[in-house]
Amino acid sequence: MNLPIHAHEYTDAHWDKHLNCTREFLRQPSISAQNVGVRTTADLLRGWLEAHGARVEFHGRETHPILFAEWNVGAPKTLLVYGMYDVQPVDGQPWTTPPFAAEIWNHPEGGESLIARGACNSKGPLMAFLHAVEALRATSGLPVNIKWTIEGEEEIGSFALPEFYRAHQERLAADAAFEPFWSQYTLEGQPHITLGTKGVMGLEFICRSGEWGGPNEVTHSSLGPWIASPAWRLLQALGTMVNEHQELTVDGIPPLGEIGPDDEQLLRKLAESFDNQQTLARLGTARFKRDLPPFELLRHIEFAPMLNINGLKSGYLGEGAHTIIPTEARALCDLRMATGMKVEETYQAVKDHLARHGYGDIEVLMDSGYPAAKTPLAAPVVQALIAAYRAHGFEPAIRPMEASATPYFLFTDVLGLDFSWGGLGTAGGSHGPDEWCSVAGLKALEKSAATFLVAFAEYGG
Amino acid sequence: MNLPIHAHEYTDAHWDKHLNCTREFLRQPSISAQNVGVRTTADLLRGWLEAHGARVEFHGRETHPILFAEWNVGAPKTLLVYGMYDVQPVDGQPWTTPPFAAEIWNHPEGGESLIARGACNSKGPLMAFLHAVEALRATSGLPVNIKWTIEGEEEIGSFALPEFYRAHQERLAADAAFEPFWSQYTLEGQPHITLGTKGVMGLEFICRSGEWGGPNEVTHSSLGPWIASPAWRLLQALGTMVNEHQELTVDGIPPLGEIGPDDEQLLRKLAESFDNQQTLARLGTARFKRDLPPFELLRHIEFAPMLNINGLKSGYLGEGAHTIIPTEARALCDLRMATGMKVEETYQAVKDHLARHGYGDIEVLMDSGYPAAKTPLAAPVVQALIAAYRAHGFEPAIRPMEASATPYFLFTDVLGLDFSWGGLGTAGGSHGPDEWCSVAGLKALEKSAATFLVAFAEYGG
Repeated sequence: MNLPIHAHEYTDAHWDKHLNCTREFLRQPSISAQNVGVRTTADLLRGWLEAHGARVEFHGRETHPILFAEWNVGAPKTLLVYGMYDVQPVDGQPWTTPPFAAEIWNHPEGGESLIARGACNSKGPLMAFLHAVEALRATSGLPVNIKWTIEGEEEIGSFALPEFYRAHQERLAADAAFEPFWSQYTLEGQPHITLGTKGVMGLEFICRSGEWGGPNEVTHSSLGPWIASPAWRLLQALGTMVNEHQELTVDGIPPLGEIGPDDEQLLRKLAESFDNQQTLARLGTARFKRDLPPFELLRHIEFAPMLNINGLKSGYLGEGAHTIIPTEARALCDLRMATGMKVEETYQAVKDHLARHGYGDIEVLMDSGYPAAKTPLAAPVVQALIAAYRAHGFEPAIRPMEASATPYFLFTDVLGLDFSWGGLGTAGGSHGPDEWCSVAGLKALEKSAATFLVAFAEYGG
Repeated sequence: MNLPIHAHEYTDAHWDKHLNCTREFLRQPSISAQNVGVRTTADLLRGWLEAHGARVEFHGRETHPILFAEWNVGAPKTLLVYGMYDVQPVDGQPWTTPPFAAEIWNHPEGGESLIARGACNSKGPLMAFLHAVEALRATSGLPVNIKWTIEGEEEIGSFALPEFYRAHQERLAADAAFEPFWSQYTLEGQPHITLGTKGVMGLEFICRSGEWGGPNEVTHSSLGPWIASPAWRLLQALGTMVNEHQELTVDGIPPLGEIGPDDEQLLRKLAESFDNQQTLARLGTARFKRDLPPFELLRHIEFAPMLNINGLKSGYLGEGAHTIIPTEARALCDLRMATGMKVEETYQAVKDHLARHGYGDIEVLMDSGYPAAKTPLAAPVVQALIAAYRAHGFEPAIRPMEASATPYFLFTDVLGLDFSWGGLGTAGGSHGPDEWCSVAGLKALEKSAATFLVAFAEYGG
């Protein structure tokens, strides 16, 4: 295929404006967990979408609306695009520059980079795609019809999106689904295409004093030999759920998800060029949890379920001493679900495990959950992305699964669509301090998005 | 012995004034862990002591001074009295009336009671003793010389007191030591005399990412299959230290402290009248940690060491979800030390245990620690207290050990003094919400303190 040269020239000519617009967007906080600036961000976004010719509707919750934006240009093919405008909290993280200042500085990994919550995940890519649409409309025109759903509660579990997708299957009808996102570790490096994502479930474990024992009120800890502690109890209960590698050992939850022979083949190929030390340096950790060969490492990150402790909270959290037995203990967790795992069955397996080990009193609250999703390598929307990367001079690496979770089951299970996600560019620090995206990468993402849209229009489906 | 009738009449005549003075004292916060009002309280107390004829000095830290107050009346016997003016924090506790309002209301356990942080532990008893001194001085005169050390950091580990005692052994020379404190569960019930207290050690366990693994920065939890979690690691490390009853299983820490035959005899006698259900109701818990016969229950509360989790803290502590792997996890603990256990050896045993189980990277910070203390039943200061209770019409129950910790090792190990502590009256809610002391009990404590001072002067030593 040929590159959409005119759209790319438009991007070059308007780059200062596009970059400033993205910074302005990042300066507007949109922390869904704390409901900070979420609706304001939705309104801001609506304004920009409408200014670029989209028809926009709000759906779902007033406070965290789903934006549905549509450009119907009468093209033969229609692409359903997914985006998100909410971000994670920033509390207690050591940021070098304020998380909502969107400063530009020389990041050790990204070079000249935008530093902001959402720069990587995922307000940066959202704006890059918006600007790619602008560039195409201003030059050769949009080659496909676009339906764009942009949610404001991805980071807290995408509450409203499933219902919205289920309720509007006809309006969301399309040939395939797509999400713009970074695919490179370095701007010269091989882009990655991934054929699926894990699922995730938000769980909170709460141990409260009750019939089993524990103090009804916060009590002097000298009574410890008589009164059991909810903190010890929660700690011991959680301890029964994992092995020495912090891996789940719960009946009904497999050690690894389903892996087809094609995926195994892809993993073996990736393992050949896997660089342990480079990966550890990129992750910022001294060692892998387990000392495994590359194929096994890849199999674990892509196919192993995992119970992560996001937060642990009991008793006195202040400074100094406070000699008490607390009345409750809480562990905020996420459970990463591998291919083949089902939400309700997994939730039940966790509760059954606790009951079987004598911890039936421990509450397990599920605040959200969705399963893993898979798409075939042969799907036109995947092949179009491969073609786009090749047009930019890159041969992509293909991975079976992404470790992180995105509700792509909505494409596959609800709408019956194949999907892909990607774009050139590099970014990082997702959910942590000094989240960043390369400025050059942002431009590469914008250009490659335009290329992909043209490729998808051309690619036989 | 005869009751000091005139002093008791003085108490009755001045009761409104004494009660108001105690409420005023309780309204002044003195939270040592947060350094709230501590020095102000010390200054207030100094004023009252001097107004009652004591010579007062400040020692130790400027912010948390030790008050040394002395009445030298040229009596043959001298009593060293211990007191404390600091209190525990109140954060996050559901108080019915504000903790520093010192309201009076009908408490379900105490009847007409003063509700305030410190009412029970131990600003109430401190004021009762001060008023007993006032009553004796205004009537028959003080029958003994009094040296009173009153510290402002008992709740955070009595940092300065040991050094002060060691440095001033001659000035603190006395015939015995004493602390005024509640001894009854109800105002009609049998007072308790206890012949020792456990020791305590403040420990913080900190697991940080490091050479063993874990993320150097807060990281997206999708990386859980590769990057180990400090939260899981701390939880698993602590889990190796206790059995299914949450009891310590650490080499070098005995399951039970040393028990002499006299103490065992006393325990067996107490076991005869031990009421399980009444005790559970008083403690506010559905059941004992272990289903044991009364003698064993008493042996555990008085002689078992215990590692209590006071606070557990890791990762995201806010509302909503935040899918991260934290970089550290902390457990704030106290380790209750039984008779015969030594501070440094116990601390080393904990660290050795962790190292032996592969958790040598986990930091164990000790912020304070002191051993248990014992006094013989035959000591004059104990016999004087028994005589005082009998003069008030009560036959005391004698217990070998107190579950809670007080630095009485300073009396025994540093100054070589026998000691006792007690007084009539009832109070509760120590360290928790709605801490209380019975108003009638406060008066009973004041009167019995006067009686005890007279008894101690009379009792053959």
